[in-house]
Amino acid sequence: MKKKLSEIVEIIGGELCGDGEILISGLNRLDMAKEGDLCFAVDGHIEEAKTCAASAVIIPANYVGDFPKTSIKIENPKAAFSKLLEIFVPKIEIPQGVSDKAFVGKNVEIADDATIMPFAYVGDGAKIGNGAIIYPHTFIGHYSSIGEQTIIYSGVTIREYCKIGNRCVIHSSTVIGSDGFGFTTKDGVHTKVPQVGNVIVEDDVEIGANVGIDRAAMGSTVIGHGTKIDNLVHIAHNCKIGANCLIVAQTGISGSTTVGDNVTFGGQVGTVGHIKIGSNSIYAARSGITKNMPENFFGAGFPVQTHSEWLRNQVALQKVPALIKRVVQLEKKISEKEV
Amino acid sequence: MKKKLSEIVEIIGGELCGDGEILISGLNRLDMAKEGDLCFAVDGHIEEAKTCAASAVIIPANYVGDFPKTSIKIENPKAAFSKLLEIFVPKIEIPQGVSDKAFVGKNVEIADDATIMPFAYVGDGAKIGNGAIIYPHTFIGHYSSIGEQTIIYSGVTIREYCKIGNRCVIHSSTVIGSDGFGFTTKDGVHTKVPQVGNVIVEDDVEIGANVGIDRAAMGSTVIGHGTKIDNLVHIAHNCKIGANCLIVAQTGISGSTTVGDNVTFGGQVGTVGHIKIGSNSIYAARSGITKNMPENFFGAGFPVQTHSEWLRNQVALQKVPALIKRVVQLEKKISEKEV
Amino acid sequence: MKKKLSEIVEIIGGELCGDGEILISGLNRLDMAKEGDLCFAVDGHIEEAKTCAASAVIIPANYVGDFPKTSIKIENPKAAFSKLLEIFVPKIEIPQGVSDKAFVGKNVEIADDATIMPFAYVGDGAKIGNGAIIYPHTFIGHYSSIGEQTIIYSGVTIREYCKIGNRCVIHSSTVIGSDGFGFTTKDGVHTKVPQVGNVIVEDDVEIGANVGIDRAAMGSTVIGHGTKIDNLVHIAHNCKIGANCLIVAQTGISGSTTVGDNVTFGGQVGTVGHIKIGSNSIYAARSGITKNMPENFFGAGFPVQTHSEWLRNQVALQKVPALIKRVVQLEKKISEKEV
Repeated sequence: MKKKLSEIVEIIGGELCGDGEILISGLNRLDMAKEGDLCFAVDGHIEEAKTCAASAVIIPANYVGDFPKTSIKIENPKAAFSKLLEIFVPKIEIPQGVSDKAFVGKNVEIADDATIMPFAYVGDGAKIGNGAIIYPHTFIGHYSSIGEQTIIYSGVTIREYCKIGNRCVIHSSTVIGSDGFGFTTKDGVHTKVPQVGNVIVEDDVEIGANVGIDRAAMGSTVIGHGTKIDNLVHIAHNCKIGANCLIVAQTGISGSTTVGDNVTFGGQVGTVGHIKIGSNSIYAARSGITKNMPENFFGAGFPVQTHSEWLRNQVALQKVPALIKRVVQLEKKISEKEV
Repeated sequence: MKKKLSEIVEIIGGELCGDGEILISGLNRLDMAKEGDLCFAVDGHIEEAKTCAASAVIIPANYVGDFPKTSIKIENPKAAFSKLLEIFVPKIEIPQGVSDKAFVGKNVEIADDATIMPFAYVGDGAKIGNGAIIYPHTFIGHYSSIGEQTIIYSGVTIREYCKIGNRCVIHSSTVIGSDGFGFTTKDGVHTKVPQVGNVIVEDDVEIGANVGIDRAAMGSTVIGHGTKIDNLVHIAHNCKIGANCLIVAQTGISGSTTVGDNVTFGGQVGTVGHIKIGSNSIYAARSGITKNMPENFFGAGFPVQTHSEWLRNQVALQKVPALIKRVVQLEKKISEKEV
Repeated sequence: MKKKLSEIVEIIGGELCGDGEILISGLNRLDMAKEGDLCFAVDGHIEEAKTCAASAVIIPANYVGDFPKTSIKIENPKAAFSKLLEIFVPKIEIPQGVSDKAFVGKNVEIADDATIMPFAYVGDGAKIGNGAIIYPHTFIGHYSSIGEQTIIYSGVTIREYCKIGNRCVIHSSTVIGSDGFGFTTKDGVHTKVPQVGNVIVEDDVEIGANVGIDRAAMGSTVIGHGTKIDNLVHIAHNCKIGANCLIVAQTGISGSTTVGDNVTFGGQVGTVGHIKIGSNSIYAARSGITKNMPENFFGAGFPVQTHSEWLRNQVALQKVPALIKRVVQLEKKISEKEV
């Protein structure tokens, strides 16, 4: 896929500054650009653009300075670039409807414009909403439902009786509704507590790859609407995660923990179970949350403290080796005086 | 699925206190209950039950106080509730036998009452025991064996030559028998050390979702009988995990580490490799185990220490910023005296 | 599979010391050996071999001391043992070619001697190189390419437009090319930033099980040639990992981070995003890398410091509780003098 710069200007408009015969074979970021690439630069990135390896750059129309490379000056470089992305990246065609290589159980409701790809398994009594796309090797358990326009990527497991909302995206190899980690121990032998609840994922939730969200022992594990979950996150049984949270990769939320709305967990955060974490809060990466937390909290560290305390402590802890020496000095002086 | 409270009393027995015409449409936990739900409450939860949103509650027959909601008084509320769960939660039917949509290799032994679901792959020479259930999209490698009554959920990979015991449960997307992380490095180039061992999972083991248990370089990686493993756990090659251990989510056990019996690892624990961890021990969440450990140990922190030491240190470390100020004061006073 | 020790000597040569009638039923490590096993021992392991449970041991021809067990003395014990492994471990046969139970899309290029196993899905426009093996339940996305001699194990997802190099090994349930975790937030609502880039995995890369490597928002997430990645690792969008790195299990690399060549990350390491980590460095397990790092660095701790600083600090921090007591003593003495 190659286009002359002059052809590109015909598509997106703008003012061509330089040789329109230049052939563009790809679109790229400034820092990864190579010859044949076209990039875009907004204010704050113009200097970087001047020295990038791209053959041409789309820059803001209002840029007044000298620009040493072939460029297209245009009102909104980013919008123009997005338009080109659609042309340069070939569209993927996924045939609508139910593949004859898929397995569909009894009493399944599949909306007419849903897509079920080869090797997908849809269990008895499941429901697939309008415009939903079920990729290959996905398992939709018995009596589970997938909302409208929701995309389930390859290799996802959604166990029985779970509900996935509308406009959700669930990435590959993620498991929703696996049994919670619940055992009663007698004489050192662990006996499984039946996990008869489910998982409810509300609307507009995105869940990354290789995530595990366990079904409730009873009732539901809930992921609130608009919440976004990164890769390799663990959410244990009976958790209730609020709306519009951001949960970064490798975070683990222990069982029966309730998280409010608009809470951000940085990467590799952990929490104990059976606590309440207030809304509108941010917890820095690696935070270890060991107790109930108020709203509007900016936390860090393990055990968790305010982010400013944590910073202060980090600085102080670096001084401990020197502090020990100072105390030894003081003890020496005191004892001398005592002699 | 709806039943009158009076019908429910006919099923479970007990004394109906209130309107038997109330329609029950679901069973739920006290804290998640809504109208139409029936809940149960045991001692210690009666107060919560009084104000819950459920339409009715099953309470202990011996409860003497006043109870403001419609209730069923019965000897063992939990047992009665479990009985109802079987009625309200429709049973899932999985047809026994080998699906004609599954792939079965050469010289495979499948017990008559085992179940192999669509899109399962069973490699040459594999053995599937009585009552085992192999879900869709599972890969059972060549010459591997699955014990009796064992459930392998969708998307699980069990590589060649591995042995899974009886009555095990392995949750979705878990990988057993992937190659260990073993390389020899010469002039900065890493060359793979062949991983020709296997994994042996003994009886009554449960393994969560997205777990990775690597095959031994030689010999076997072993998971002892009755051990339960949570989601997203990593167990490296040549580890020997004892019996009846509990390994909570996101814990990582490095290669060739031996763990005794009845050891509990909290979430996000890590260990170095080639160490021995004694039996009958508990390691708190986030413990980092860096050396051989005795039996009957209650550990925490990184590097690991006794839990009590760790608590004491945590308290002390919070005081360091103040301590620095106090030492500055002392230095000032001393120097004044010296002048 | 059983062989007399005398038969084994016929195969590998060497000098038989003891009863050639002994039946060998398996090969094993010294520390896991049981009766019927044959082991090998090189210098430094002879003492262990003397007391191991194996029925016989292969030892170096040049060993002069007394050896109490039946043995085979041979020039290169390890080489002889490897030869026997090929005999005792039945070879796995995977029929070459494209299974009629696989799904292959339009305009797919599959080399004649590639292998596509049952239930594999290969999307439109994908390319599979010579000698590549695609296991069951793998998803090869549209327009993605798999290099020569590369092995993709069961349950792997490689999303659209990604490139996997030659001689790579990708273990089960790993996801390459899932959408990066990119959102713009307005009034608390998170809107997805299109992730239109891809992932490029260069030659000779090995990637463990349940790993997630996200596609770039634009351009490419890159894994450099010869790099080896362990299980459950997270690599976020737009990362560039150099050549011949070792990334141990459960490590997480945040978005747009650039890692040089020959960098080793121990287990459970984490990094912030948008930083540069210099080449020829080692970061100990649990390191938390929060800023740009130079080359040739040996780091540990969180926030990361030099490994020696970290060790010194760890020792010092254990002394803080005692230090507090000592300062209290000093304050007492000073105040006494002041009275």
